[in-house]
Amino acid sequence: MALISPSRRLRRTPFSDGVEAAGVKAYTVYNHMLLPTVFRSVEEDYHHLKQAVQVWDVAVERQVELRGPDAARLMQMLTPRDLRGMLPGRCFYVPIVDETGGMLNDPVAVKLAEDRWWISIADSDLLYWVKGIANGYRLDVLVDEPDISPLAVQGPLAEELMARVFGDAVREVRFFRFGWFEFQGRSLVVARSGYSKQGGFEIYVEGSDIGMPLWNALMEAGKDLDVHAGCPNGIERVEGGLLSYGNDMNDDNTPHECGLGRFCDTQTAIGCMGRDALLRVAKEGPIQQIRAISISGDKVPGCDRVWPLMTNGKRVGQVTSAAWSPDFKTNVAIGMVRMTHWDDGTSLLVETTDGPRDAVVHEAFWA
Amino acid sequence: MALISPSRRLRRTPFSDGVEAAGVKAYTVYNHMLLPTVFRSVEEDYHHLKQAVQVWDVAVERQVELRGPDAARLMQMLTPRDLRGMLPGRCFYVPIVDETGGMLNDPVAVKLAEDRWWISIADSDLLYWVKGIANGYRLDVLVDEPDISPLAVQGPLAEELMARVFGDAVREVRFFRFGWFEFQGRSLVVARSGYSKQGGFEIYVEGSDIGMPLWNALMEAGKDLDVHAGCPNGIERVEGGLLSYGNDMNDDNTPHECGLGRFCDTQTAIGCMGRDALLRVAKEGPIQQIRAISISGDKVPGCDRVWPLMTNGKRVGQVTSAAWSPDFKTNVAIGMVRMTHWDDGTSLLVETTDGPRDAVVHEAFWA
Repeated sequence: MALISPSRRLRRTPFSDGVEAAGVKAYTVYNHMLLPTVFRSVEEDYHHLKQAVQVWDVAVERQVELRGPDAARLMQMLTPRDLRGMLPGRCFYVPIVDETGGMLNDPVAVKLAEDRWWISIADSDLLYWVKGIANGYRLDVLVDEPDISPLAVQGPLAEELMARVFGDAVREVRFFRFGWFEFQGRSLVVARSGYSKQGGFEIYVEGSDIGMPLWNALMEAGKDLDVHAGCPNGIERVEGGLLSYGNDMNDDNTPHECGLGRFCDTQTAIGCMGRDALLRVAKEGPIQQIRAISISGDKVPGCDRVWPLMTNGKRVGQVTSAAWSPDFKTNVAIGMVRMTHWDDGTSLLVETTDGPRDAVVHEAFWA
Repeated sequence: MALISPSRRLRRTPFSDGVEAAGVKAYTVYNHMLLPTVFRSVEEDYHHLKQAVQVWDVAVERQVELRGPDAARLMQMLTPRDLRGMLPGRCFYVPIVDETGGMLNDPVAVKLAEDRWWISIADSDLLYWVKGIANGYRLDVLVDEPDISPLAVQGPLAEELMARVFGDAVREVRFFRFGWFEFQGRSLVVARSGYSKQGGFEIYVEGSDIGMPLWNALMEAGKDLDVHAGCPNGIERVEGGLLSYGNDMNDDNTPHECGLGRFCDTQTAIGCMGRDALLRVAKEGPIQQIRAISISGDKVPGCDRVWPLMTNGKRVGQVTSAAWSPDFKTNVAIGMVRMTHWDDGTSLLVETTDGPRDAVVHEAFWA
């Protein structure tokens, strides 16, 4: 792995002091901010995440706040998911598309009130698109990035730890819903969500000043639960088929290609800017799609670039994320495969940076 | 320095193979792409840049291309710099502002033709803002990120090296102008520009396939000139007062605060979206501004966060970039200082991560 040079441009988070004290070993950069990637080792972090509970600095999930009479209208302009039935207190995973249906981000929308929304973004400056649209359409809405830094609590013991800090009522929060909970006199949004398949919560920490007090409170309360600092895990998220914007898809791809057709209600999402383009895609279907891919042999190298998927010398897709899975005893991967070769069980060749390997297309992810 | 985890999301460039072969030691991430920061050492790279010639992978300067009948109108909407007198073949440094006059980027605009422009961007997804505006105002223009990766040739011997590869005509290209030059049958934009004060060129390499051939041709042609792989140098750019978007300013700041008032023709830049706000600023003047700051003592640590500038226990500014300068035998820095304390020679205290140091405000940068 290469070194990363320090600069203010790669922003620290309200939890960085805690992350450093916990012995972070590596980072990535996400929304111009440092995101930890390894604490003990990717494998050790992986096993621990599946057994205990971790506190994750995911402040990189910056919020785009929409506030004002046109907030709901603007939110619907951004996504082909029909938001009319969405009540305050709900979180929706929403593909965000441009006018051609190309994905600009795949955030979680948090509806605080009819006229107040947060968009908890993946790695692109969605703020710029939303501000541009709000401005161009002269919408009556304020758009900005507030001082909110999500902290995730993930793993099978997450609920127990959260209850110790926020009270038992947190146990009642259902998946992709949120409630308001007190910490040091501050009322915070706590959602049952997170970028793992192990269950857990995301705390939308409003006000950088309470970042470390909350981090420390969670670490203190979870000592006997073997709580540890953690981060989105490169193995676990691939096993679970959790997509990463910029890795597995970008603005070349429609939501349908990403297997996110179920989050598109293109017929009824009136106002969505990419609706015309996506109605066409919804009708004809995509010609390539995200698939689970297993790769033979021992541990693959880090997937730092597209790995072509080949058959008979012809390129039929690409792998964009890959890791050795200790639990499934194979290399798990995410790729985009053309319809001619996306059926379950199709054998292909993947050109990794270390040379070609056998690969198999799977209908479903591992977890 | 921390390690950086590999992923496709941190994009490689067409020159990455050359960068690795040259022994890159560290990176930063810029526009979702790897930007080398150190080859031999920051100090060694610095001395070499000032004496010889370096080839820089600055593919991270992604291009936003505007094409169509409304391209010029859109370009003027983005910036308070009056572009009416700008001829094709010219490059203009243009602050890009939102409707409040807050800076969204500080790119170089390249005018290819009345209806075709490139915006060579600093570190933010300006594409999203430009697409949003084009869309919201229903402009007749195509906006996208083409396959163009700038390669810079910088240093006192840059002209000699460039002439060997592109012919003597390249010597006639004047500062912030460009011409079209052939390489392997491909016609490329070559501008006299670059992110150093040592002079040089930027080649807008169109087509990733010729990236490494061009890199190799430059390395081969420059052997006796002591050509070496290099990168924007953290010492040299601070000495010269070259600002870094995200480090020294962000969307909180107006161009006037950044000392870029000379690039604002706010009265005549009709159509600029931030014009109303900036007319106000132009009239009243900014209340804080970018200044050169010297910091006493031996080499300062890496400036990975804002360092407050204090006087009598009161905060009057902040340092955002800093480095030890071997040539000027002091720590050079860039900071934002309130008008009450921005006069040349003002003594302040800077709170670095290693503790407080004496600091002095300067009217002018070092180089």
